[in-house]
Amino acid sequence: MRIDIITVLPELLASPFEASILKRAIEKGLVEVHTHNLRDFSTNNYKQIDDYQFGGGAGMVMMIEPIDKCISKLKLEREYDEIIYMTPDGATLSQGIANELSLKGNIIILCGHYKGVDQRVRDHFITREISIGDFVLSGGELAAAVLCDAVIRLLPGVLGNETSALTDSFQDDLLAPPIYTRPADYKGWKVPDILLSGNTAKIEEWRENEAQKHTEKRRPDLLE
Amino acid sequence: MRIDIITVLPELLASPFEASILKRAIEKGLVEVHTHNLRDFSTNNYKQIDDYQFGGGAGMVMMIEPIDKCISKLKLEREYDEIIYMTPDGATLSQGIANELSLKGNIIILCGHYKGVDQRVRDHFITREISIGDFVLSGGELAAAVLCDAVIRLLPGVLGNETSALTDSFQDDLLAPPIYTRPADYKGWKVPDILLSGNTAKIEEWRENEAQKHTEKRRPDLLE
Repeated sequence: MRIDIITVLPELLASPFEASILKRAIEKGLVEVHTHNLRDFSTNNYKQIDDYQFGGGAGMVMMIEPIDKCISKLKLEREYDEIIYMTPDGATLSQGIANELSLKGNIIILCGHYKGVDQRVRDHFITREISIGDFVLSGGELAAAVLCDAVIRLLPGVLGNETSALTDSFQDDLLAPPIYTRPADYKGWKVPDILLSGNTAKIEEWRENEAQKHTEKRRPDLLE
Repeated sequence: MRIDIITVLPELLASPFEASILKRAIEKGLVEVHTHNLRDFSTNNYKQIDDYQFGGGAGMVMMIEPIDKCISKLKLEREYDEIIYMTPDGATLSQGIANELSLKGNIIILCGHYKGVDQRVRDHFITREISIGDFVLSGGELAAAVLCDAVIRLLPGVLGNETSALTDSFQDDLLAPPIYTRPADYKGWKVPDILLSGNTAKIEEWRENEAQKHTEKRRPDLLE
């Protein structure tokens, strides 16, 4: 898989890809992540990539031309399955969307910044708009990092133990059951006896029951 | 405002706070963000902070003792309004939650990693559990960065133009209307005439109408 991220703040995206699972996935050659600084595609000497809104109003708008130039250059080099724009009014990211994107070959992610991009970019270049939730961020960069993390960890070989992802919340529309580790007694707070019983069948039954109860209490919408 | 982030991967959180709006907010003294490496609170020579699950199963669990030590140390130094655990089964982050948290004084954010924390941490130390969405990440670090961004940009004085945040998506339960900037004609793709008319009242009316239509089409749930 190859991910090209177009951004005005490549430096913001540095550390998330230089640590932990994303770093290991890149080192193992399971994914390539390339960051493109939109200012390199500016058409004037000021490296300008944003301008005032037509019609007035607060906040700058990202111009179409540098984005067109960057996307067109990438599309000349290879075919892309999706050109995604991170925006709060996009489709809300779900585990299902992450699963689906993890099967793609090449994708471009355009990070919005300021008030967002010129609408014509969305009308003519973008194939998919994704939001990570109903809240506003100062830019699409962290949203892009979140999307990459959610997708990349699903690629075969990225997680050490394949079964680990399969028992996460949402993969089966249930929240995960409570988990415990040593010590069995910490300041009088004890681990449930069943987990210390060694009875694997009973433990599985307890976990399924707890996952069900936890989901009913917190997220009944997932059970509908 | 002061935010203390407890994490096993402090290096992952470096760049989001060293760029853009978060960096400026910190430099202006509008917020302090401190990162604490959980391994510094390990009680053995291996800097161990995780261990196998009681009852078996894939994935490691973050131990209660180092977390207790870190939180207790911080609580000795000052009072905290919230101790937040980032977890996929927490309450889904919304603009309303971001608004509410932006009014707090001191908060701790605990980042989950591996399979998550020992349930006793959640039962005895955490005051609030927040998820950024129905998807699984390789850790809570990016989720914590997202939460910080959503909250910090709302602090008075952080955004250059106060009106900018007020016209964002979600602040009035409507998605933002389309925006355009120069050139007015790009490869034959034109900006709507109304935005070039100079008629402020008509432009406002058009924007409200477009925001309403856009929200009805994409997110009718926001209008309910």
